[in-house]
Amino acid sequence: MKFMNVFSFSQMATSYCRRILTRRLPILQWSPTYNTHKCISDTIAGITVGLTVIPQALAYANLAGLPPQFGLYSAFVGCFIYFVFGTCKDITIGPTALLSLMTYQQVMNRNSDYAVLLCFLSGIVQILMAVLRLGVLVDFISIPVTVGFTSATSVIIATSQLKSLLGLKISSSGFLDTLMKVYQKINETRFTDLYLGIGCIVFLLLLRKLKNFQLNVVGEKPTTRQKYWNRTFWLIGTSRNALVVLLCSVAGYLYEVKGEGSPFLLTGEIKPGLPSIQLPPFQTVINNQTIGFSDMVMDLGSSIFLVPIIAVLGNVAIAKAFASGTMIDATQELFCLSMCNVIGSFFSSMPITGSFSRSAVNHASGVQTPAGGIFTSVLVLLALSFITPYFAYIPKTSLAAVIISAVIFMIEYEVVKPMWRSSKKDLISAIATFFVCLIVGVEYGILVGVAINIVFLLYPSVRPTVIVETKKTASDIEYLMITPGNSLYFPAVDFIKTSVGKAGVSSRHLPVVIDCRYILGADFTAAKGISALINDFSVRKQPLYFFNTRKEVVTVFQGVLEEDFKYFTTSEELDTTLKG
Amino acid sequence: MKFMNVFSFSQMATSYCRRILTRRLPILQWSPTYNTHKCISDTIAGITVGLTVIPQALAYANLAGLPPQFGLYSAFVGCFIYFVFGTCKDITIGPTALLSLMTYQQVMNRNSDYAVLLCFLSGIVQILMAVLRLGVLVDFISIPVTVGFTSATSVIIATSQLKSLLGLKISSSGFLDTLMKVYQKINETRFTDLYLGIGCIVFLLLLRKLKNFQLNVVGEKPTTRQKYWNRTFWLIGTSRNALVVLLCSVAGYLYEVKGEGSPFLLTGEIKPGLPSIQLPPFQTVINNQTIGFSDMVMDLGSSIFLVPIIAVLGNVAIAKAFASGTMIDATQELFCLSMCNVIGSFFSSMPITGSFSRSAVNHASGVQTPAGGIFTSVLVLLALSFITPYFAYIPKTSLAAVIISAVIFMIEYEVVKPMWRSSKKDLISAIATFFVCLIVGVEYGILVGVAINIVFLLYPSVRPTVIVETKKTASDIEYLMITPGNSLYFPAVDFIKTSVGKAGVSSRHLPVVIDCRYILGADFTAAKGISALINDFSVRKQPLYFFNTRKEVVTVFQGVLEEDFKYFTTSEELDTTLKG
Repeated sequence: MKFMNVFSFSQMATSYCRRILTRRLPILQWSPTYNTHKCISDTIAGITVGLTVIPQALAYANLAGLPPQFGLYSAFVGCFIYFVFGTCKDITIGPTALLSLMTYQQVMNRNSDYAVLLCFLSGIVQILMAVLRLGVLVDFISIPVTVGFTSATSVIIATSQLKSLLGLKISSSGFLDTLMKVYQKINETRFTDLYLGIGCIVFLLLLRKLKNFQLNVVGEKPTTRQKYWNRTFWLIGTSRNALVVLLCSVAGYLYEVKGEGSPFLLTGEIKPGLPSIQLPPFQTVINNQTIGFSDMVMDLGSSIFLVPIIAVLGNVAIAKAFASGTMIDATQELFCLSMCNVIGSFFSSMPITGSFSRSAVNHASGVQTPAGGIFTSVLVLLALSFITPYFAYIPKTSLAAVIISAVIFMIEYEVVKPMWRSSKKDLISAIATFFVCLIVGVEYGILVGVAINIVFLLYPSVRPTVIVETKKTASDIEYLMITPGNSLYFPAVDFIKTSVGKAGVSSRHLPVVIDCRYILGADFTAAKGISALINDFSVRKQPLYFFNTRKEVVTVFQGVLEEDFKYFTTSEELDTTLKG
Repeated sequence: MKFMNVFSFSQMATSYCRRILTRRLPILQWSPTYNTHKCISDTIAGITVGLTVIPQALAYANLAGLPPQFGLYSAFVGCFIYFVFGTCKDITIGPTALLSLMTYQQVMNRNSDYAVLLCFLSGIVQILMAVLRLGVLVDFISIPVTVGFTSATSVIIATSQLKSLLGLKISSSGFLDTLMKVYQKINETRFTDLYLGIGCIVFLLLLRKLKNFQLNVVGEKPTTRQKYWNRTFWLIGTSRNALVVLLCSVAGYLYEVKGEGSPFLLTGEIKPGLPSIQLPPFQTVINNQTIGFSDMVMDLGSSIFLVPIIAVLGNVAIAKAFASGTMIDATQELFCLSMCNVIGSFFSSMPITGSFSRSAVNHASGVQTPAGGIFTSVLVLLALSFITPYFAYIPKTSLAAVIISAVIFMIEYEVVKPMWRSSKKDLISAIATFFVCLIVGVEYGILVGVAINIVFLLYPSVRPTVIVETKKTASDIEYLMITPGNSLYFPAVDFIKTSVGKAGVSSRHLPVVIDCRYILGADFTAAKGISALINDFSVRKQPLYFFNTRKEVVTVFQGVLEEDFKYFTTSEELDTTLKG
């Protein structure tokens, strides 16, 4: 008997451990059923994503104000880690335009150590968030704020690429500053860069259209040949970034080889080879001055919290988009993302998260499991090992074109109309977020947007609706029915007290009944307020009753006012009492 | 006809102006009916308050780290202004223990100019609050926070008086620092001061009891002689502060005159005469360095907002306590308080507000109109003009005794029990406020308390209750009824979506009905979430209906999802549809 118990206990413990293990290491869930078919799909998808991420990584490193190789360093770790810890097959982790922009704010006038430390600290904050179950913070970022923020970011990113597109040499920070400096130097525009850039954008937009081009008539089944061409169009469309960058760098290379010198500004030397594995930089040297850990943390300031939160937000949003209705394990995603950042920081990565555009490519390329990431990683590592010398010939303007053609589709103007129809006050937070992000800074924009949202959220708790009606009971006794339209917590107490008092005074003779059907909860301040209200009414010798009061609310009220509190649950009781 | 219109328009305009005028100058309301009887009552009350405020003012100036005369400067302006602009006959404006403590934080290691500038800026912030209708902020300070805050402040104030009581010469800041320094120097205690101080406290507490002592048996009508004695007891009890200070300073004076030197630490020289009328100090000199306006403002920091908000909070709380059920014009009180502070700052006042203890004395002394304040003011001015030289002989320990005997009754331990019975989570905010006030600082304590309260307030909006029941319609069709227990705004959307999705999946065959009776409002994020939910259900081919949906909520939802949204208002409709 005892043996049995021990046995069943150990069985329970084993099953519990296994459940935790498979939850924290999702690879254990899908790897047993992995097969050749899935592997082929994953290979194709992984390589397609790899061809997308290489030019993006170079461009985003540029956007973050870092040497180009840092983009590639950031691009391979995440995919490896996600392969083990990730729950959503489509997500690919790596550098993104948004995080690059936020990193730029910290790297500007400093050095790359700040980017790597920010990556490490973001991971630490994400672990803390997972442990403290602070994933709930993500719930406070509403769609209007997200829309305002993404749109503003897209505008800022597109603007930041103007200088590369125009071939100008400017160091600027922020949207307005960039616009101003570009305007000042507009007559130094290098037209070769401009024309190439515009050419690349047009080419990219056309290839983007090509992606979904179908030879067959819509609705009809394509023939085998049509299928082949459709597939080819899709492949060309999907790898358009790699294609454009490749063509332009060949041009750059040819000019250089001919000894004429390139007519375009080129990316220049890239440090070849893999990054060395080392501790994240806990101190750094700027202008021959050593800056310690605490000073670096002070310099990074609020971005230590905002970068990881924005990263989580982005990642969860993508996971939700591709999960199509099934549950997301937000804690596991948070944990996985923190691993990506902490481990990434040992490989000189900047902060990383799930990339919407690459995840979409991954999904469209038919990825089957997170193993697709392995092939992406390997492709990036091969690029770092063997072809970095050729990256030097990539014209900067073509990378700018890649970024601009990607972000202009993130400006979500089409959401304004349904928002106007659905909930006009949401437009206020969206527009406020957009402009504060654009003019003051992305962090402030988010904070302002969330603050406005919370004010709207709290409003019914502060100034609830109060409906006053004169009613009659079954036995024709007139009374005043007052219905507060919200729970009764401290900010509303004075307002409700004053409203009920006023209504009571202005119909002096009538008994007052407060219908508590929408009072789902109450607190001590409310109980005190109700106690004062009952007192005021009894001084005036006007009867005051409570109706439809929930049990929880009765408990709160009675904690303060014991016997005086008269409440009913049925209209009959009410009738009887008013008659008495 | 036209003439009539113009006439009635001008009549309307006149009546509107008059209404505004009497609202902003309440003196116009009560002065027409002012008479000798009221004047006598006001005189008695005003002089009684005056005898209370003089020793308090000296003590509070000491508490604020200012020369004693500043307490008197602060004591007369408020009463004058309140006479014109005030709405509540009982309130007397002047220095208070709490504001003195908050002022001390700013004056410490600086000079009195900071106190006067803080007074001016508090007034300006209060005007802004009145204009922007930010009186609503006061609603966010709940009773638990007020209780925690007042109790902590009382403990801090009592502790800060320990050094004077023990005759120690210490400069300290904050509760812990004071305790530590007193402990370190405890063997330097001057026992003459200690004994006198303790004697004063015992005497004050006894006289406090005497105030309500009645010679006649309770319930019986007193004889004329008993009435006379009862009245005398009350008068002695009420003027106990003035009495104790007077007796002790006579003792101090006699010792000095005999040439033996006082055995007690005395208040020392007080600058005699009225304060000069001058602009508030917009710059100051510390250690021979001139400090400009912007630097002073930076030094004052968050107290520029916290001092006026706390002042308004205190004043509104007193007004509410004495208004006994009638409406308080919060905006007018705010405006009046701002006038007191702005004009006060031209007379070297520190920040002032309504004093609870003196307002209670005023009330108990039978004040009839705000004119009582005039007599208080005149008494303070007379004291400043003629008797300041004698203030030098007041032993510091007796002022400490006055303060300690007043504040120990503000520690509200007796509220803990009803709070525990009524709403246990309110104890959390009260206790957190208390300890953070005590250990970190009063401003932070309030902020932490309000933050905890808001988290509790928001909780139901983030994780509402969701009740899932299997029900049957009249025609016996089974369905799943899901009732979310709160409005549907952005922080709850994912939670509700997941909950409904899970419940729907786990009872695959049943149609799902969402009962929206408690969904009083919704926003764009909610509409998007509901849209995704409807989509998930239609992919699963599971019916999803909405029941009891309010018109406002339907509008918000339909802004996003137009045709797919199926909702009913009666059970019959529901039955018919489920049957179909």
